[in-house]
Amino acid sequence: MGEKGEVKLIGAWPSPFVLRARVALNLKSVDYEFLQETLGNKSELLLRSNPVYKKVPVLLHHDQPICESLIIVQYIDEVWPGPAILPKDPSERALARFWAAYVDDKVFPAMQGMMKAQGQEEEKSVIDQLLGGLQLLEGALREVGKGKRFFGGDEIGYIDIALGSMLGWMRVTERFSELKLFDAEKTPLLVQWADSFTSAEAVKGVMPETDKLVEFAKILLARFKSQA
Amino acid sequence: MGEKGEVKLIGAWPSPFVLRARVALNLKSVDYEFLQETLGNKSELLLRSNPVYKKVPVLLHHDQPICESLIIVQYIDEVWPGPAILPKDPSERALARFWAAYVDDKVFPAMQGMMKAQGQEEEKSVIDQLLGGLQLLEGALREVGKGKRFFGGDEIGYIDIALGSMLGWMRVTERFSELKLFDAEKTPLLVQWADSFTSAEAVKGVMPETDKLVEFAKILLARFKSQA
Repeated sequence: MGEKGEVKLIGAWPSPFVLRARVALNLKSVDYEFLQETLGNKSELLLRSNPVYKKVPVLLHHDQPICESLIIVQYIDEVWPGPAILPKDPSERALARFWAAYVDDKVFPAMQGMMKAQGQEEEKSVIDQLLGGLQLLEGALREVGKGKRFFGGDEIGYIDIALGSMLGWMRVTERFSELKLFDAEKTPLLVQWADSFTSAEAVKGVMPETDKLVEFAKILLARFKSQA
Repeated sequence: MGEKGEVKLIGAWPSPFVLRARVALNLKSVDYEFLQETLGNKSELLLRSNPVYKKVPVLLHHDQPICESLIIVQYIDEVWPGPAILPKDPSERALARFWAAYVDDKVFPAMQGMMKAQGQEEEKSVIDQLLGGLQLLEGALREVGKGKRFFGGDEIGYIDIALGSMLGWMRVTERFSELKLFDAEKTPLLVQWADSFTSAEAVKGVMPETDKLVEFAKILLARFKSQA
């Protein structure tokens, strides 16, 4: 769907936030050109398109830039036909927005904190935050998903995209820490959900391989440590 | 509009986030019951209605809780007829969401940082962040508002609510720091905008008086210092 050049996405393959935009575009069967940024070298186009944050992803639709991953996903949902990403009912929409924001405000910072934690005490605190957050999301999946495969029901929805985009980096976190984030006893629904998400048609072609992410994480960590 | 008891708002009068919900409800002419929380003593109803964050505002619509101020404003816009708060056009909606999120991610933390800054260096850094943010918002008002009174055009919209709710606390910040946040030379549009917002029908009855906020800020600061 779409004319050639109509839709472009400025992104970077390891970014979970970029992945959100890609999954949303796939769900709506929108063709787009992927403009790959390289680490440590921001393109003129990115700087011009997102002058406030200078961050990927930026969606360019007829050259009009749309910034911030969850805003991009909502934009995609509003502009293109196809399966609805946000629920139609306003109170369900509010709940979807609530949990998606929770991922950004609590889950992602905890994941980031684990990579950067210095000392056992700091590490324990972020691990507790992360595991506690996942426990809450397990409850949300039970409540919002109502026994279906996804938070969005039978199909991937807004919360699925928000949280699912983090799965690759959660696996990296597991590798580095020997911690089990998704546990068949503590979060049985999330374990199944993660499988369903990863193998969904809209996701499997764009979700980065964990091995590649681990290699990338080592580069990032080395940079972080040399700056610290 | 609305049956008695249909809409309740759990809030606290000094909260800029609660103010957002009140302005949105006023714009839509929705009658509601205001349930005032007291500092340092959270009600059972609040804890039960927002178990994740335990924070005001919570909108109760037919007893169904909706949390997080910007999510509440979007909910109000979607549920009640009346003047539209978000623009209809998806790219304008995305821009409105972008700047509203900017207020939460950059402007509010800088304001909070000013109250808590320890030492001149830290204070200078947050002041620069705050003034820089307001300069960007001046540019956004020029671009998005297209010469009209509000970001939303002739009427108060989403960005107006997000930023305008901070005005009372900005005035408190000015009093405490002898800093001029809105300056007729540097941010002439924002100076006019702040006047228009404060005197708008939907705002003037619910915007707390600066003197009362200053008294409240002194209590907060004393608490903060006794904990530091």
